[in-house]
Amino acid sequence: MKYLIVFAHPEPKSFNGSLLDVAVKHLESQGHEVKVSDLYRMNFKPTIDADDFLNHDKNERLQVAGASAEAFVANQLTADVVAEHEKLMWADNVIFQFPLWWFSMPAILKGWIDRVYSCGFAYGVGEHSETRWGDRYGEGSFEGKRAMLLVTVGGWPTHYSARGINGPIDDILFHINHGNLCYPGFTVLPQMVVYRTDKADDAKFKESSEELKQRLDTFQTTKPIAYRRQNFGDYTIPQMELKEGLEQPGETGFAIHVKKD
Amino acid sequence: MKYLIVFAHPEPKSFNGSLLDVAVKHLESQGHEVKVSDLYRMNFKPTIDADDFLNHDKNERLQVAGASAEAFVANQLTADVVAEHEKLMWADNVIFQFPLWWFSMPAILKGWIDRVYSCGFAYGVGEHSETRWGDRYGEGSFEGKRAMLLVTVGGWPTHYSARGINGPIDDILFHINHGNLCYPGFTVLPQMVVYRTDKADDAKFKESSEELKQRLDTFQTTKPIAYRRQNFGDYTIPQMELKEGLEQPGETGFAIHVKKD
Repeated sequence: MKYLIVFAHPEPKSFNGSLLDVAVKHLESQGHEVKVSDLYRMNFKPTIDADDFLNHDKNERLQVAGASAEAFVANQLTADVVAEHEKLMWADNVIFQFPLWWFSMPAILKGWIDRVYSCGFAYGVGEHSETRWGDRYGEGSFEGKRAMLLVTVGGWPTHYSARGINGPIDDILFHINHGNLCYPGFTVLPQMVVYRTDKADDAKFKESSEELKQRLDTFQTTKPIAYRRQNFGDYTIPQMELKEGLEQPGETGFAIHVKKD
Repeated sequence: MKYLIVFAHPEPKSFNGSLLDVAVKHLESQGHEVKVSDLYRMNFKPTIDADDFLNHDKNERLQVAGASAEAFVANQLTADVVAEHEKLMWADNVIFQFPLWWFSMPAILKGWIDRVYSCGFAYGVGEHSETRWGDRYGEGSFEGKRAMLLVTVGGWPTHYSARGINGPIDDILFHINHGNLCYPGFTVLPQMVVYRTDKADDAKFKESSEELKQRLDTFQTTKPIAYRRQNFGDYTIPQMELKEGLEQPGETGFAIHVKKD
């Protein structure tokens, strides 16, 4: 299979960076092809602006979604963005690897999302009408591809537990798993999270390496997060609200968008 | 009062950018002092890296939190970051104004958080021991200051409702309101969100302007989000889990960290 790893850590010698080496070597040893978008080493431009759209008249007001759509169809996106599009379309599986900073991804990775997720490519895809609100949440350009977050965290697991002060890790990562991966069509695997990496020793690194290899060996067979698909009857259109009675009794919040067995 | 507006939109003529003008003019007309950090116009460096820490030896492994703490105490942070610290400490009230992109803030604002929220300043503050886990979540450097998100959104309100497919807006913004504002000590006001700004007409802009002025006029008196404070008995230490029975019956997820009347 073909794997793309989008990697966003400034330090290759970090715990996180060392896990990247483990992933690449292990995947290659199993006969897979691997490409890495190492955003820091690429000095990836992190901020979307008028320079992203080669056909945009800079005297005109910039409307980001509109300019993005126009540049995408006219093949007037910048070369660095087009290269990432090609890697995404090449890949069967994508891993987003980053340290959790301030309860989300590092800015350089957010900028990759903002810039690479062009209108017509990752959003604004498909028919938008009274009966259909585009191809998203389970459909879209990345349909059929699997994706997984690989996240290192400084805090403790209990801080991210069901009652933990930071909020449950599944909820903290929902804006990424559901909003950035499921939205453009990825099948989303449960994230791999390593906690307390700031204090990690060699034994912990070895343990995390083994967990990662096991996650990679089962990438094709791991049961994905059962996010509800938008256009298959669970939601009203165009309000996009979950129809009454589909959730579990008492279930609220993000959880209602995940189907239970 | 002294207001800082941290503004992250690439287009001053946008709906969002036009609201910035409304805010600044209205606040000044009421006798307040206003500073704006217009991140795009400042060409604010959005990516934290070894260059952020002037006393960091680039041959050494970069451990971001450690390097940040060392640079903060040694006054070896970059001038642009120090300038933002000074604005934050100057301000009584802070508004974070941005378009919601991919269910979070634009990369340039995330980079402002990553870089300006130095260790020893916004995290890693106060005593860390068996009985106390630092000054955070209701305490910290920004204690006594109020903060509010001002967010423009392309989608519809129903898409962000309790049953909306994107998830409830309060939950989507929790990683920012709770994780980025409450964490370093801000008193957090309910966000102002304007939906469907891509399709907005003059009447809608006028309506939003009036809402914004009203929000600014009541900034000091608006009831904040009642996030639980970390060090006042609601959480176990060091596990940082909410003690049993404090939540409402059946309440789960982020909601348990907000006290109800």
